[in-house]
Amino acid sequence: MYKPATIKDIALALKLSPSTVSRALRDGYEISVETKRIVMEYAQKVNYKSNPIALSLKNRRTYSIGIVVPKLANSFFSQAIAGIESIAYEKGYHTIITQTHDSSERERTNVNHLAQRSVDGLLISMSAGTSDYSFLKTLHEDGLPIVFFDRVIDEIDTFKVTSDNFKGAYNATESLIKKGRKKIALLSNAPQLSITNERLSGYMKALADYHVHFRPEYIRNCSKGGNDYEEVEDAVKELLALPDKPDAIFISSDRISISCVRALKHLNFDPKEIAIAGFSNSDVVDLLHPSLSYVRQKAFEMGQIAVEMLLKLIESKYPVTEFETRVLDTELHLVDPK
Amino acid sequence: MYKPATIKDIALALKLSPSTVSRALRDGYEISVETKRIVMEYAQKVNYKSNPIALSLKNRRTYSIGIVVPKLANSFFSQAIAGIESIAYEKGYHTIITQTHDSSERERTNVNHLAQRSVDGLLISMSAGTSDYSFLKTLHEDGLPIVFFDRVIDEIDTFKVTSDNFKGAYNATESLIKKGRKKIALLSNAPQLSITNERLSGYMKALADYHVHFRPEYIRNCSKGGNDYEEVEDAVKELLALPDKPDAIFISSDRISISCVRALKHLNFDPKEIAIAGFSNSDVVDLLHPSLSYVRQKAFEMGQIAVEMLLKLIESKYPVTEFETRVLDTELHLVDPK
Repeated sequence: MYKPATIKDIALALKLSPSTVSRALRDGYEISVETKRIVMEYAQKVNYKSNPIALSLKNRRTYSIGIVVPKLANSFFSQAIAGIESIAYEKGYHTIITQTHDSSERERTNVNHLAQRSVDGLLISMSAGTSDYSFLKTLHEDGLPIVFFDRVIDEIDTFKVTSDNFKGAYNATESLIKKGRKKIALLSNAPQLSITNERLSGYMKALADYHVHFRPEYIRNCSKGGNDYEEVEDAVKELLALPDKPDAIFISSDRISISCVRALKHLNFDPKEIAIAGFSNSDVVDLLHPSLSYVRQKAFEMGQIAVEMLLKLIESKYPVTEFETRVLDTELHLVDPK
Repeated sequence: MYKPATIKDIALALKLSPSTVSRALRDGYEISVETKRIVMEYAQKVNYKSNPIALSLKNRRTYSIGIVVPKLANSFFSQAIAGIESIAYEKGYHTIITQTHDSSERERTNVNHLAQRSVDGLLISMSAGTSDYSFLKTLHEDGLPIVFFDRVIDEIDTFKVTSDNFKGAYNATESLIKKGRKKIALLSNAPQLSITNERLSGYMKALADYHVHFRPEYIRNCSKGGNDYEEVEDAVKELLALPDKPDAIFISSDRISISCVRALKHLNFDPKEIAIAGFSNSDVVDLLHPSLSYVRQKAFEMGQIAVEMLLKLIESKYPVTEFETRVLDTELHLVDPK
């Protein structure tokens, strides 16, 4: 069984008292330079590390941040995590990453495990499966600093950072209209996610502004968030089997965008026949065929802002009562179908 | 500052002694049924959780597994992690994920942090930047269970699981030769990685078996493992600027495969002119244009095997002295260039 060297071990080996060793390691003034040298050298030799778990029991600071995301395979989240790490690492905080696979049960398990292991705070992007937020509310009320990013919830009052999902969806839908498309379908994520509704509103506003008729039969929710390819292919098939079938699809979710490209390829649809535009932070989206226009979120920057907000909460000496929600711009990349 | 409810808090609220509360929570026989009920109900109300950190100081078991990978944005690793989680979750273990960004320094920091936070064991795939393994050796000698997957090292005797990199590289190179290509370049990862050398050997053996002349000027190492696109584009440019330029490229690393596709597109090379085949576990590799043949590793299965090996080490009552290295088959997917 793994046992790191302790102060007791060092004391025993060097025939000193544990308190002398402890003071020497803390560079205490009451210890001679020579004793300090001997202790330090031996501590280095046995790879001694002050025990942060014992420390954390005393002062409840671990310099660890827990990150909870739905899916690591989603480029948006790996980019956001890289952003979080870029700041956390610089400020001396460790990051501990967990994923929920969009399952509410795993999310609760991961969050509780991180809280029990005494992270100093949590950065979370909600799973598509969650509708009961009481486990988070309890931790938040107990004083655990929590910041939401991307998939945020209204139910907890804290710092949040997300994208301008309304505008991103508006711009993408508008670009399809400007290409002369009038029959634009919408493929979207689970309806309980904040991002799903904001993007739906952007899509509807663009249709309204350009006097394009809104058709409820053109809307399809993929509740599994693109984690289940079949669900997306079925939705695409249904849309393309409609008597008055769409001539364009706007996809309001990252992984569903990729699955839609795959479905159109599989169903042998010419991208000139069905134009597509979708949210995507994939680092190969511009190499895909069929090609698509894409809305890119500032994932790395979002991660950086989220962790800065969290550190503000963690390091504040007084309870924080005023919170901010930051909304980041998106970028539309237009691609002509080939 | 976040403070979960403690036994003391409960004792105070219920006007009981802390030891009575503690025994009631552990269902001790000396406590009355009525007292147990009162304590349990109150503990549930205040969301009391037994403190696993305090426990871990006593018995050194936390039911947590640390995972250390180079890059979450690499599909191979997110698939392997999903495999690890599928077994760990079932067996009641939590997984804590960290990434090194292929930096040796971050790797050491992450590993030491996980060890100090008392994970029961480590699953690690080495960073491309690491050549000094002493920090791992020390932990291993101290008895921390460690299993290596994919990027393994010879220096530590433990369970390991990797792919048949030799055969994967052989098959991919052979497929290019069978397409009539005779001038096959090799783009590979950092030379100190185990996988780099195994794949180089497979490439060279295929050339030898088919009497294709080996040309040292056709070999290019991208030490940053595809994390730096410019490095890959420069290597491709150099190869294509040779007086007798290659008619095919075999890419022996996942992320470099994608960067090579991007470089060929950027440099306007017809895939018929330069055929490519590469290792890739990207979930969109079959949608890329220019298209490529690809070697796929059994990442999910590798994660499952690695965690099973680790649990064997963690749960063994006696020191384990006989270790196995599992080598998994790869799959070659042939794609005709379009």
